[in-house]
Amino acid sequence: MDDDTATEILDATYRALCQHGYAALTVKDIAAEADRSKASIHYYYDSKENLFTEFLDFLYERYTAKITGVDGSTPREELDSLLDTVLTDGRQTPGQEFRTAILEIKAQAPYNDAFRTQLARFDAVLFDRLREIIAAGVETGEFDSRVEPAVAAEFLVTAITGAHTRHVATDRSIDRFKETITRYAETHLLTDTPAEATR
Amino acid sequence: MDDDTATEILDATYRALCQHGYAALTVKDIAAEADRSKASIHYYYDSKENLFTEFLDFLYERYTAKITGVDGSTPREELDSLLDTVLTDGRQTPGQEFRTAILEIKAQAPYNDAFRTQLARFDAVLFDRLREIIAAGVETGEFDSRVEPAVAAEFLVTAITGAHTRHVATDRSIDRFKETITRYAETHLLTDTPAEATR
Repeated sequence: MDDDTATEILDATYRALCQHGYAALTVKDIAAEADRSKASIHYYYDSKENLFTEFLDFLYERYTAKITGVDGSTPREELDSLLDTVLTDGRQTPGQEFRTAILEIKAQAPYNDAFRTQLARFDAVLFDRLREIIAAGVETGEFDSRVEPAVAAEFLVTAITGAHTRHVATDRSIDRFKETITRYAETHLLTDTPAEATR
Repeated sequence: MDDDTATEILDATYRALCQHGYAALTVKDIAAEADRSKASIHYYYDSKENLFTEFLDFLYERYTAKITGVDGSTPREELDSLLDTVLTDGRQTPGQEFRTAILEIKAQAPYNDAFRTQLARFDAVLFDRLREIIAAGVETGEFDSRVEPAVAAEFLVTAITGAHTRHVATDRSIDRFKETITRYAETHLLTDTPAEATR
């Protein structure tokens, strides 16, 4: 299959997924969204699961580009910009519908090795980028020298994942979570927190 | 329906859910697990969704009893005991199968008002208990006076939720998450962290 065809099918998968959710989604829905026959999708992907393994790979490439692409003139700015990227309001791009579908896919992971392997890669790229930024901040003295980059990064990945889950499960604004997590970063990572600062 | 019948059906729902997951679960599976006819389940609950709204209520009662029941001779011990309770190894009770099913239910929340309302109650009871313990610790001086109980509790609920999601999605041991979150609590909440302590 040429790249254009692949991208076209995977873009259609994204739209169909947001519309139907993962469980209810059929290859027929994806075909309709791509304006193709169901047979032509099956020609390239022999099952919905295979298509989704490829789809997760496609999302991973986009996610990696977004995560590695964040910038700022200091590590603190980079961290802010990264938190902005992963904790955008779910009512805009990528949308609560998409986050809901991803949560459905996460709930499939125990039954599907390929999904689990793919999801672990998303986890890893976010962890690596956070660790890198935090280590740079410790290096420049912007972050407290007692901060252990790997420990803080691991904790932030967990909190960010929790923010996504709670946003879907309880419909609370992701902005509130961003505020809480940013506050953690500012209070516990930055050097010279004034004594009167709230934790 | 008498209480025994209700408990019997809801216990069977728990077992059937762990075995089949939420999406694949049918009232027939629950009936088989309860050793009853499908018609007798339908007599009490007119749909799988109604049964599950009741089931979430049943889980909520058990969860509340567990969460409010944690004790310790100091707030720090209470916090440790609470983290133990909510971050037990998923391979024991309540089991990764159960956590997976709950994640599936969370992914249904945007489409189901009753589920969303129920799930928000789980969130709230954990938040309230954490805030209470942290406030008590600040009061006794065991926790740093700059800690804001509501902020720290909100952050911990988010991190605990993220630990559950990552445990299901990537199959990593919940013990590692417990370690990370306990370390956060010890480093950032307790008074008199020695300067050489790692963050």
